Amino acid sequence: MASVSAQFSVIVRVELDARSEPLGKLTASIAEAGGALQGVDLVPGAGREGKRVREFTIDARDQEHWEEILRAIGSTRGARVLDYVDRTLAMHRGGKIEQHNKHQLKTRDDLSMAYTPGVARVCMEIYADRNKAFDFTIKKNTVAVVSDGSAVLGLGDIGPEAAMPVMEGKAMLFKEFAGIDAFPICLDTNDPDKIIETVKLMAPTFGGINLEDISAPRCFEIEDTLKEEIDIPVFHDDQHGTAVVTMAALFNALKIVGKPIEDMNVLMLGLGAAGVAVTKMMLASGVRNIVGCDRKGALSTTRDDYEAMTEIKRWYSENSNPGHRLGGPAEVIEGMDLFVGLSGPGLIDASALERMNDDAIVFAMANPTPEVMPEEAEPYVRIMATGRSDYPNQINNVLCFPGIFRGALDAGAPRITEEMKLAAAQGIAECVADEDLAEDYIIPSVFDRDVAPAVAKAVVEEARRDGIARVSEETGTFSTLE
Amino acid sequence: MASVSAQFSVIVRVELDARSEPLGKLTASIAEAGGALQGVDLVPGAGREGKRVREFTIDARDQEHWEEILRAIGSTRGARVLDYVDRTLAMHRGGKIEQHNKHQLKTRDDLSMAYTPGVARVCMEIYADRNKAFDFTIKKNTVAVVSDGSAVLGLGDIGPEAAMPVMEGKAMLFKEFAGIDAFPICLDTNDPDKIIETVKLMAPTFGGINLEDISAPRCFEIEDTLKEEIDIPVFHDDQHGTAVVTMAALFNALKIVGKPIEDMNVLMLGLGAAGVAVTKMMLASGVRNIVGCDRKGALSTTRDDYEAMTEIKRWYSENSNPGHRLGGPAEVIEGMDLFVGLSGPGLIDASALERMNDDAIVFAMANPTPEVMPEEAEPYVRIMATGRSDYPNQINNVLCFPGIFRGALDAGAPRITEEMKLAAAQGIAECVADEDLAEDYIIPSVFDRDVAPAVAKAVVEEARRDGIARVSEETGTFSTLE
Repeated sequence: MASVSAQFSVIVRVELDARSEPLGKLTASIAEAGGALQGVDLVPGAGREGKRVREFTIDARDQEHWEEILRAIGSTRGARVLDYVDRTLAMHRGGKIEQHNKHQLKTRDDLSMAYTPGVARVCMEIYADRNKAFDFTIKKNTVAVVSDGSAVLGLGDIGPEAAMPVMEGKAMLFKEFAGIDAFPICLDTNDPDKIIETVKLMAPTFGGINLEDISAPRCFEIEDTLKEEIDIPVFHDDQHGTAVVTMAALFNALKIVGKPIEDMNVLMLGLGAAGVAVTKMMLASGVRNIVGCDRKGALSTTRDDYEAMTEIKRWYSENSNPGHRLGGPAEVIEGMDLFVGLSGPGLIDASALERMNDDAIVFAMANPTPEVMPEEAEPYVRIMATGRSDYPNQINNVLCFPGIFRGALDAGAPRITEEMKLAAAQGIAECVADEDLAEDYIIPSVFDRDVAPAVAKAVVEEARRDGIARVSEETGTFSTLE
Repeated sequence: MASVSAQFSVIVRVELDARSEPLGKLTASIAEAGGALQGVDLVPGAGREGKRVREFTIDARDQEHWEEILRAIGSTRGARVLDYVDRTLAMHRGGKIEQHNKHQLKTRDDLSMAYTPGVARVCMEIYADRNKAFDFTIKKNTVAVVSDGSAVLGLGDIGPEAAMPVMEGKAMLFKEFAGIDAFPICLDTNDPDKIIETVKLMAPTFGGINLEDISAPRCFEIEDTLKEEIDIPVFHDDQHGTAVVTMAALFNALKIVGKPIEDMNVLMLGLGAAGVAVTKMMLASGVRNIVGCDRKGALSTTRDDYEAMTEIKRWYSENSNPGHRLGGPAEVIEGMDLFVGLSGPGLIDASALERMNDDAIVFAMANPTPEVMPEEAEPYVRIMATGRSDYPNQINNVLCFPGIFRGALDAGAPRITEEMKLAAAQGIAECVADEDLAEDYIIPSVFDRDVAPAVAKAVVEEARRDGIARVSEETGTFSTLE
């Protein structure tokens, strides 16, 4: 059974008899119904003669569980449920982000500097040198979070309107962890050409583009084309954010098990956008033996359906599985050092992990239910990571995207290179101090405030080394690359 | 000569001898050079041995004037200019707006409600009923300020990057006067079809679209098509904002001169986007005799080049000038009751105004230099208005767009109708109390904080009367129109 959580938190307003106030009985019935009472507040002045009104904040397992708890409260003598509020829905009401003016507009002087006529002079500065947009507009600190709502969380193609709460949440994370002003743009099309065109046309406003929750294989084409055609960083977080954080976890795991990266045998289960990106980044980091499995088993140029595969899977087959192994994940897992799951719930049996090499590492990242649960995998693996916050070693993109964009924007980089991604991964890995490194602590907490600045610093340095930093280290001014 | 203004305000950092501190001499030389000293601040701890550093905030006429003032300061004995800052540029540095999170993200519980996994439930609410986007996303309070930078202020086609400071300024005004979260989107194309397509694709994010500084005649096609094809309000402010505020001024002017609107003879000079929109709104309000002049004189179906005219000018010729008058503005002004200028500086001679009817009204709105200056027109006109803040009766769009969008968003109206625009104009006009109404006070101040709420209220009421309010007056919930 799922455990109670804040996502199913409810505030219940209860009217109680003032004399016999049955508070103890109530908290007992809430506990008996399995609710986790987070707090009780008196509503001053509310309630009829001889009554009091109190608000109970209760975490539950799910919506059905709420009803159970409400019934338990309602059947307590001297208590009556007045109403209740779904705290998660309440938090999203009216949206989660807002615009803010940096200067006040209270006087004619304010207006004549911020707007007409003074603004004309600022416009002409940029007209004379387009690079000045990075100095005098929001461009330098603003990222578009662009989605078509086609692959939102595990919910599938739910469309642009329904995707907005996720994109707004992403914008909040950009601000909270890296001070970046991100703005969500959800597009009413699934056509890659239209998405590309729209982003290109909007690009003058933004300093970077974070593509989000766009389904494969369209996401590859969209990202590749945009990277070619616009001069600001374009980053598909579902691919590269996941890859960067996975590599960070791997770098630290290897410090513990002491295996060289070149010698790792890797099984990758799930070859969507994230799986492909993780594979590419591992190959670029020196891993030589990766076997990728889709629903039909291990990909190989020798697999029956090779000719019928999509372009990306043919590419995958050609660039992996040097031993041409065939079969399902439970077969090809034999002799693997690392299992990476970016697929679905329970797709590998814990018992299969026994056939991995010693010091086995398992990153089971399907959300919310991993490919294998940590408690089941425990007997067979040395290091285990998931995408979940309620187990050790959470591999979460929020460790990457705020910092990597912060670095790219600060450097004025026109793109995020493979080397910058690698620098970001190293930056994350190094946030775990050597003396703290342990099987259950290979990756910093998502609330570690040092991560984003560390990542940003590593990314800026790499951009300078690459020669693609357009912001001068000395003067801080922005100029076109030669 | 132009007068000093805050738009050319500069902060000059001056090192002064501590003993003989020549402050009096300095303020005298600044005044002598024509600078308006706004303040002097000591910079504590700055300056070498025996020196003090002070900052002088000075308004000037223009950039050349700064140099004069700097020279005057520099040539004062015991004073040395260290550096200076252009206050307007400084205000725009890094952009003028920023994103803000409405809730904090400090704990795992925060994250699980605002983002994953809790957000999934919010997404599914919207997936089940797309209207819920108005409840659970930023849509309900968010307007896109969209421009292609083709007709920015009086600067012409300066492109999307250079237009951004104006669009950001507009976003500030939306927030300051109506609490609306506006986001600037500058598009890298002048192609009407591409602009239309882009706005349509972005529409799921927004509750309204404010088109801005898009040149005629493309602006007409873009607005008309978007109004047809998306179900949120689309409003080209350069057209309709100007028209609404002009009508508000006219309504109040007519109260003073006591002429019925049907009997007004109107000369309209300048037939760009704004001139056409003002004309249409006047016609809809009962004005019967409007003569429009472009560079070649009065438009008429009898004018030589009628066949060669653009579509909009042929429409104009057919729907105006019932007397088929021909000639330049100085000729056709004979017998007019109202002159409306939306053209260029000094395009009508003050002496021509003498040939207008008694109680002549002149709205000379070219910016920054009107068609005729108020001091020159004064002998011939009873009521004079301009677009400038340094004369009485400033006709400024900021009186309209924040309130009209506030009203449209609050009502959940899918469009802004002619009736809603008229209600907005009446709402603005009524902000001038009858007892205050006078020749030099026909229009409220741009800083009158009552205007936007009054306009919003009038617009909401009109939307309800029209039957196009999608937000229920009783429950506040949003639903699709029948």
